[in-house]
Amino acid sequence: MYKLLPDLSIVEASSFVASPTAGLYCAQMGAEVIRVDHKEGGLDYDRYMLTREGRSLSWENLNRAKKSVALDLKSGEGRELLVALAASAGNLITNLPEASFLSHAAIAASRADLVSLRIMGWHDGRQAMDFTVNAASGYPLMTGPAQWDAANPPPVNQVLPAWDFITGAYSAFALLAGIRHRERTGEGAELRVPLGDVAIGTVANSGAMAEMLYRGGDRERLGNAIWGAFGRDFVTRDGKRFMVAALTPKQWDGLVAAFALAAPIAALEEEMGVRFADGDTPRFAHRERLFALFQEVAGRIDWAALEARLAANACTFERYRTMHEAANDPVLVADNPLFGPSPANPSGFAYPATRSFANIPGEPRGDPCPAPFLGEHTEEVLAEKLGLGAGQIASLVDRGVARLSDKDHR
Amino acid sequence: MYKLLPDLSIVEASSFVASPTAGLYCAQMGAEVIRVDHKEGGLDYDRYMLTREGRSLSWENLNRAKKSVALDLKSGEGRELLVALAASAGNLITNLPEASFLSHAAIAASRADLVSLRIMGWHDGRQAMDFTVNAASGYPLMTGPAQWDAANPPPVNQVLPAWDFITGAYSAFALLAGIRHRERTGEGAELRVPLGDVAIGTVANSGAMAEMLYRGGDRERLGNAIWGAFGRDFVTRDGKRFMVAALTPKQWDGLVAAFALAAPIAALEEEMGVRFADGDTPRFAHRERLFALFQEVAGRIDWAALEARLAANACTFERYRTMHEAANDPVLVADNPLFGPSPANPSGFAYPATRSFANIPGEPRGDPCPAPFLGEHTEEVLAEKLGLGAGQIASLVDRGVARLSDKDHR
Repeated sequence: MYKLLPDLSIVEASSFVASPTAGLYCAQMGAEVIRVDHKEGGLDYDRYMLTREGRSLSWENLNRAKKSVALDLKSGEGRELLVALAASAGNLITNLPEASFLSHAAIAASRADLVSLRIMGWHDGRQAMDFTVNAASGYPLMTGPAQWDAANPPPVNQVLPAWDFITGAYSAFALLAGIRHRERTGEGAELRVPLGDVAIGTVANSGAMAEMLYRGGDRERLGNAIWGAFGRDFVTRDGKRFMVAALTPKQWDGLVAAFALAAPIAALEEEMGVRFADGDTPRFAHRERLFALFQEVAGRIDWAALEARLAANACTFERYRTMHEAANDPVLVADNPLFGPSPANPSGFAYPATRSFANIPGEPRGDPCPAPFLGEHTEEVLAEKLGLGAGQIASLVDRGVARLSDKDHR
Repeated sequence: MYKLLPDLSIVEASSFVASPTAGLYCAQMGAEVIRVDHKEGGLDYDRYMLTREGRSLSWENLNRAKKSVALDLKSGEGRELLVALAASAGNLITNLPEASFLSHAAIAASRADLVSLRIMGWHDGRQAMDFTVNAASGYPLMTGPAQWDAANPPPVNQVLPAWDFITGAYSAFALLAGIRHRERTGEGAELRVPLGDVAIGTVANSGAMAEMLYRGGDRERLGNAIWGAFGRDFVTRDGKRFMVAALTPKQWDGLVAAFALAAPIAALEEEMGVRFADGDTPRFAHRERLFALFQEVAGRIDWAALEARLAANACTFERYRTMHEAANDPVLVADNPLFGPSPANPSGFAYPATRSFANIPGEPRGDPCPAPFLGEHTEEVLAEKLGLGAGQIASLVDRGVARLSDKDHR
């Protein structure tokens, strides 16, 4: 854990994926991130995968390196404590609705320079989740085998909750922009990031929205081929599937060499009257002929031999792994400095955990921290941030307004 | 465009998607982002979709609101100018390799407190692109119809370059963390974000890596169903496909009401000895029986009627659009304040353009800015940032070291 944000304290009142991710990234950069949940756990506390003891492996990875405070958020007193904690920290990440007790105005009443980051569904307040904004974006009807009926293909949802993760990362960025603005001007800010805007806005930013409007229709279905360039999945003699891409001159030259295809490609160039070294356009236009040449070679070679040739020619490629294979792949995980030794996870299950995605050469990277038990830091945070005494905290616990660590009573 | 970062000047030397996205997000928050390219255009200058005049709709969307400087980056003199510009700005976003003329050390030699953000392929320096890290991540072999042969399903690539966009947003966050650290300590920093680490690290952060290790194998294939909760695509009598999700009690109650399924679901609960209101677990466990009930209702109703019932019950749902439909959907685009009027795009083609994903209630949001023509700001930037006089710039242009706007000679 790098200490780039050691002076920041951020209250996170959130659930699911996008909002906890924003807090996670800040925590992995050294900020104090205090996740405040309902005392029985938030909406995501039982999110799959659950261990046999009922611990969520999703929760304990998305909330790594945070502190946990458990309050009765259905009670007025618990809600007031959360508002007071957010005011005390001055920084808030949440996905609770603006029309809730945790509005920006409610906190800013006692902390005028509050910076709050609110993740919403759609911009107009309608609920949305990754799965539903994805349906609206257009991507699921472009995904899947090219040979499917072009007129009426079934939608294919991406399994990665990509919109959640883009929104989480963007929200961490927007929060820091707001905090930095306050440091320059003294002004707080309320920043709202709708998940749906991230989805439809990314369609636009990628150029795909302009493309569809320019075409006056939808892009042709491409299956696993790369749009506008050379790349696709191929399969070797021994049945290994791999993805390969060539967008730059170096990538293309390396690929032709690795597949020993210089002569057949020269013949194809002659036949078609093009030069494939000219760039993406001829390679994409004649992709089916090229794909056939590359697949013919791949189908005659086992993966181990082809991989050596691809690596020797500095090609850009990867073998498709199942996720279980990926988790056990030493190059991806065990030997990758992104991952550190397993911390003491609430689940008791040991597995590799991430450090921050960003690394700083020469700086000690620190080891990953565990997620907290729910309520593990209730006493510490109420005492330090709100100045409550031991008796006051005991009373809150006795009355069910606050709850301590669920370590022994999950 | 909000002016949260008006004091920042950032040089961006980049191509493709992740790295330009990081610069785009900063530019849309008011930073001056100076994209410096090779005088003929970077590797992504001709990225599809191209207009008939050869303008890239991808480039002009990912480089919106930036300035453009065109230099001969194959010449020593052009490279020195880029290093000098990065040193002058003090902030750099790049995806050029560390082992290039644009190393952190080369710039820091004249600007000790430089903050540089370098997007890499894999952490060990091997090249990677969105398509290839995706193959390694495990997601493509989990994607696609559930009925496909579970033992040997073909990979399905997601069409959205999700790893690029997550990496871009995360990099904007990490850059601001580094800049803020400098403001507190006076120290510069070199931050490296490998695309491959974002992919395999997201597998871990989502909990999916722990899940696969805990299972000792791969997750069952689910098609379009949501893992661990209730949700899937359904199709109405008139053939409209939609996605619906119910993870919270409110979502579930609304869905049962919208589909008028209270009685059949009570009967199923009796038969199975469960209560579906208890949460995700019973709803996921018996999803096939539930899916059949919901599809039976959907198949008897046209979309317009069902949509009204879903909306009236505040359900979380979306109809699948093609991307062309999405681009023309007033709720998503024309009536969405994320989008502003078309700026004067280099392509000459007019279409809606995004503002920043984050919005600040009550603050004027400004209108989207166009991308520059390549080299449009070469003179302005060389004069302002490096203090070059008109004669010096003219000489650079005459000798082919610098190039002016390609507006009239694309």
